[in-house]
Amino acid sequence: MNIFGKLFKVSIYGESHGNGCGIIVDGCPSGLALDISDFESDLLKRQAGRKGTTPRKEEDKPILESGVYNGYTTGAPILIRFENTNTRSRDYDQFKNIPRPGHADFVANRKYNNFEDPRGGGHFSGRITLGIVAAGVIAKKVIDTMKVEATLKEVYGREDIDNVIDEIVDTGDSVGGVVEVTVTNVPIGLGSPFFESVESNISRMVFSIPATKGIEFGAGFGITKLKGSEANDKFIDSAGKTETNHNGGINGGITNGNDIVFRVAVKPTASISLKQNTYNFKENSIVELEVGGRHDACIALRIPIVLENATAIVMADMLLLERAYNRV
Amino acid sequence: MNIFGKLFKVSIYGESHGNGCGIIVDGCPSGLALDISDFESDLLKRQAGRKGTTPRKEEDKPILESGVYNGYTTGAPILIRFENTNTRSRDYDQFKNIPRPGHADFVANRKYNNFEDPRGGGHFSGRITLGIVAAGVIAKKVIDTMKVEATLKEVYGREDIDNVIDEIVDTGDSVGGVVEVTVTNVPIGLGSPFFESVESNISRMVFSIPATKGIEFGAGFGITKLKGSEANDKFIDSAGKTETNHNGGINGGITNGNDIVFRVAVKPTASISLKQNTYNFKENSIVELEVGGRHDACIALRIPIVLENATAIVMADMLLLERAYNRV
Amino acid sequence: MNIFGKLFKVSIYGESHGNGCGIIVDGCPSGLALDISDFESDLLKRQAGRKGTTPRKEEDKPILESGVYNGYTTGAPILIRFENTNTRSRDYDQFKNIPRPGHADFVANRKYNNFEDPRGGGHFSGRITLGIVAAGVIAKKVIDTMKVEATLKEVYGREDIDNVIDEIVDTGDSVGGVVEVTVTNVPIGLGSPFFESVESNISRMVFSIPATKGIEFGAGFGITKLKGSEANDKFIDSAGKTETNHNGGINGGITNGNDIVFRVAVKPTASISLKQNTYNFKENSIVELEVGGRHDACIALRIPIVLENATAIVMADMLLLERAYNRV
Amino acid sequence: MNIFGKLFKVSIYGESHGNGCGIIVDGCPSGLALDISDFESDLLKRQAGRKGTTPRKEEDKPILESGVYNGYTTGAPILIRFENTNTRSRDYDQFKNIPRPGHADFVANRKYNNFEDPRGGGHFSGRITLGIVAAGVIAKKVIDTMKVEATLKEVYGREDIDNVIDEIVDTGDSVGGVVEVTVTNVPIGLGSPFFESVESNISRMVFSIPATKGIEFGAGFGITKLKGSEANDKFIDSAGKTETNHNGGINGGITNGNDIVFRVAVKPTASISLKQNTYNFKENSIVELEVGGRHDACIALRIPIVLENATAIVMADMLLLERAYNRV
Repeated sequence: MNIFGKLFKVSIYGESHGNGCGIIVDGCPSGLALDISDFESDLLKRQAGRKGTTPRKEEDKPILESGVYNGYTTGAPILIRFENTNTRSRDYDQFKNIPRPGHADFVANRKYNNFEDPRGGGHFSGRITLGIVAAGVIAKKVIDTMKVEATLKEVYGREDIDNVIDEIVDTGDSVGGVVEVTVTNVPIGLGSPFFESVESNISRMVFSIPATKGIEFGAGFGITKLKGSEANDKFIDSAGKTETNHNGGINGGITNGNDIVFRVAVKPTASISLKQNTYNFKENSIVELEVGGRHDACIALRIPIVLENATAIVMADMLLLERAYNRV
Repeated sequence: MNIFGKLFKVSIYGESHGNGCGIIVDGCPSGLALDISDFESDLLKRQAGRKGTTPRKEEDKPILESGVYNGYTTGAPILIRFENTNTRSRDYDQFKNIPRPGHADFVANRKYNNFEDPRGGGHFSGRITLGIVAAGVIAKKVIDTMKVEATLKEVYGREDIDNVIDEIVDTGDSVGGVVEVTVTNVPIGLGSPFFESVESNISRMVFSIPATKGIEFGAGFGITKLKGSEANDKFIDSAGKTETNHNGGINGGITNGNDIVFRVAVKPTASISLKQNTYNFKENSIVELEVGGRHDACIALRIPIVLENATAIVMADMLLLERAYNRV
Repeated sequence: MNIFGKLFKVSIYGESHGNGCGIIVDGCPSGLALDISDFESDLLKRQAGRKGTTPRKEEDKPILESGVYNGYTTGAPILIRFENTNTRSRDYDQFKNIPRPGHADFVANRKYNNFEDPRGGGHFSGRITLGIVAAGVIAKKVIDTMKVEATLKEVYGREDIDNVIDEIVDTGDSVGGVVEVTVTNVPIGLGSPFFESVESNISRMVFSIPATKGIEFGAGFGITKLKGSEANDKFIDSAGKTETNHNGGINGGITNGNDIVFRVAVKPTASISLKQNTYNFKENSIVELEVGGRHDACIALRIPIVLENATAIVMADMLLLERAYNRV
Repeated sequence: MNIFGKLFKVSIYGESHGNGCGIIVDGCPSGLALDISDFESDLLKRQAGRKGTTPRKEEDKPILESGVYNGYTTGAPILIRFENTNTRSRDYDQFKNIPRPGHADFVANRKYNNFEDPRGGGHFSGRITLGIVAAGVIAKKVIDTMKVEATLKEVYGREDIDNVIDEIVDTGDSVGGVVEVTVTNVPIGLGSPFFESVESNISRMVFSIPATKGIEFGAGFGITKLKGSEANDKFIDSAGKTETNHNGGINGGITNGNDIVFRVAVKPTASISLKQNTYNFKENSIVELEVGGRHDACIALRIPIVLENATAIVMADMLLLERAYNRV
């Protein structure tokens, strides 16, 4: 349930307010140079601290427990561990009976029969994406000729993102946004028709990231408003470059050498400081809830690097898979 | 690559113009009543014949090769086979050098080193979805207390669908559309956080269906234009019903008992009768191509039952998985 | 449950007395020459007809349903189908209450809640190994530089096998034997430490074949009677050849370039013509049962080609997997 | 490669002389009482210290990093971590060119292109089985009505085990042995025919444990010397109990309710203190090697608890799987 990949496999673990969290990368090729400092830049992009993000600041220092020797990956599993240092005692147990709207409190309680760790969302926390970012740093080394980039394009439906944040941050409310991810210099032939299509693999991963509610490739939902004669991407050179890229670099589930392009809908953070109605499942009544704690007013500010590195993990897996059949 | 599922597993095979196509269902519970006539209604919904669909009419008669005894599933793998009866000889080999825009011709040729079956798209054909519809008929019996329904909501951006078809069908062009899928009476607790989230599993399956380019759950991309206070679905009764359903029945990757709702973007059929530019990879020049043959002007007319039954397969797999842990 | 492999994947289906049986091979590289006649020789080795085997003679003619075009594999799934032509009506339903000793009747009835197909063992039949032999023919093309060979070394503990068969065949009883499998010209580096060790993969497959009860690699159980100084295989040349091969060509779960050698214990056919005691689970009493029908007095005569080709499937899977990382 | 299981999944990591080693357990049911002290007894059984085992003594103190809250499993992944505290600097790099006979030095070097961690065998070390023992402690809680027990039956072919150890330990040589594992109170119906047979799953796991070279179920290789009339286990009561247990509690790959019984061949430790010939792959010549360091003269003394808990992991996985279909 917490494992992704066929060849480049990742296993995540951890909780928001427990000892820590992290990831095992299994199936990483040997011989990749890997040092703690390699993680710094991407982890920094994920960190809180900017306006619109949570005041909970964690050091996010990766500990390389295994799989690296003399500065190179050995081919053995790589455990990257993060400790939780900035946790606060609060009464999270109340959310077992009075679940926060938009959160996983209710489903976690039912699925795990009241044994879930409720502190800060437990294993459901966005903090668990730390491991995904870390594994993505390694994945990027596997796909070193490709480049993955994620950009926040819109917040609350607007492109003047800084203004929206300024407006929203003091209201106690939250906003979401749209992130665009691009993979450039993609080899032809990754993915397969049907269940291992590029879109299938990427979307499975993207919806693993908390707060995502939509994904579209290339022209996406917009393609439904084009005619076939407009939507079809015409090949224009011997490398397979196409005039347009309405298919987002993918035909029949397989990369065609053009850029992979997709957009992801990120919902407003469920945690807000405003009072909300919810249901008290113990008392069987509607109640008003005010959630304290430290929140991101706009998690979409921190999610691009998560989506970027999550995508790199998928690309690494598909690249290795294709190498079993063809030199790519 | 052609296998989906953890417990309720399906393996597809087949080509558009080869002997036939079909599916193995492995991990189906024993004791489900199953008869050839059970497939009729759903297969009929997928069939061509209506205006806007291909004149190629296949009988689509399922042959139950295994896994059924005395009218009940035995617990052994169920092979459902379909024969191709209405295939036509044509020069498909030309598409190896002169790939049709928007099709998988080019990537198939590169990935499989010129050994792909080019006839009618070969294994990339939408015809392969026959098996998925058939397996979905069985899946629906596994999830018999739930109900899955797919509806075509828009074609070419318009809701007056019949008019659009009338307008487009004689131009030789094609159009796409938006399909909405709803699952009702869903038990609480299916799915997991992260890689086995409901959205991850459904989206992986949906993007296995040819021609899909986008998916959104609940309010989807629209949720990015709401504030958290608006987007959060308030619980209003002891069953976990929520006032709104912006999250599409899923929190933290897990079903919350409200309806699962998602929309899928279906692109215009790549095959059109109009002349299009493409590249001749043998002669290294841009050429004009006129694709003959029999096409669907609007594949979106036939795709709802495919998405419906594909969804049923995913739900069956997640239901069995949850049964390993809890009575659902 | 009926699927094996990570990259070279096989999915089996079928019953002894249903329509037929067969296999899908998914993940086969494109471009392998493949013709119906390629299967003939291996299928013949598996056929009954010799003294000591069942009088049920099936034609075993493979039908290539998909994945092959113009005489070459296309990269798409290959379905190979066999029809059952020589089935006989008998009262198999009795075995639901009065299970045959040594057979799967009892467990099948309990596991599948009385819905199992009881005719000739249904899906539990050795007939299902037909598909494995067929897939092995393809696997051998994938691992074409290696050679897999299985030999029956002992029957009923004796090496004068023909004599044993002569002695046993008219008594109505049955005997088992020991099969040795050798893989020669093996590249260095297949397999992994721990869960994907060569021994793990081969043994998992070998115990998938009905009637197998033991496996040992290299010196096997005999190695427990050696000292380390005797058991250790000394390297003697720059290719990694070892003086002895007590480890059966495998160290740390990985092929070392020496021959893979293992032996498999095959039990006597459970079906015998002699009267045996068993339990009547309906009447709750011990009863005497005489099983009629057509049996193999020594299934070990037919099993070598099954083990040989099953091993080829495993080797093909491990070879492709290693190719994702290294040229082998 | 380092992941086992379908529902009760384990992911191992670590090295002999790196930071440490451990395991993630994913798919563990919520609500199992779990405390650090639960691990003590089994870990102690695996520890060195007795005559015949290595003088390297590690504290083996488990650190529960995640998945446990207020003394109960939460349903989230459980990371159990062990630190390496007693490592010694030595020149392990020499083994890259002059591999120790019987060890994985040679294959690791080739497979991982000289990037493997050579210290104490790196990831190939038996130390990595610590995680398996720890996960087995949890697995035993999942299968709490069953009982798994492993016993060392023979060393160097003899049953007077203490005497053998006394004789061998000062010679610098090593010996192996035979371990018998029994699972009692097994529910009927675990496992499947073919690729998920009980024997397939157990053997795959057993050969994941370093130093194992053979496995046999029930009468094992001895069954090949019985006739069918002798080998068949007659049912004698309404619970399915059989008079004999030559099939080791398994028919058709499925548990029949009788005890699962199997024996495992454990080879003599490859590390010995005696001089041995091996090959210098840099100088291309046969050389004499004397391996220093600290070894187990008889690893078979420590392996029973590893096999016992490894078996528990497999049983837990098969139990959960069967629960998806039937109440067991």
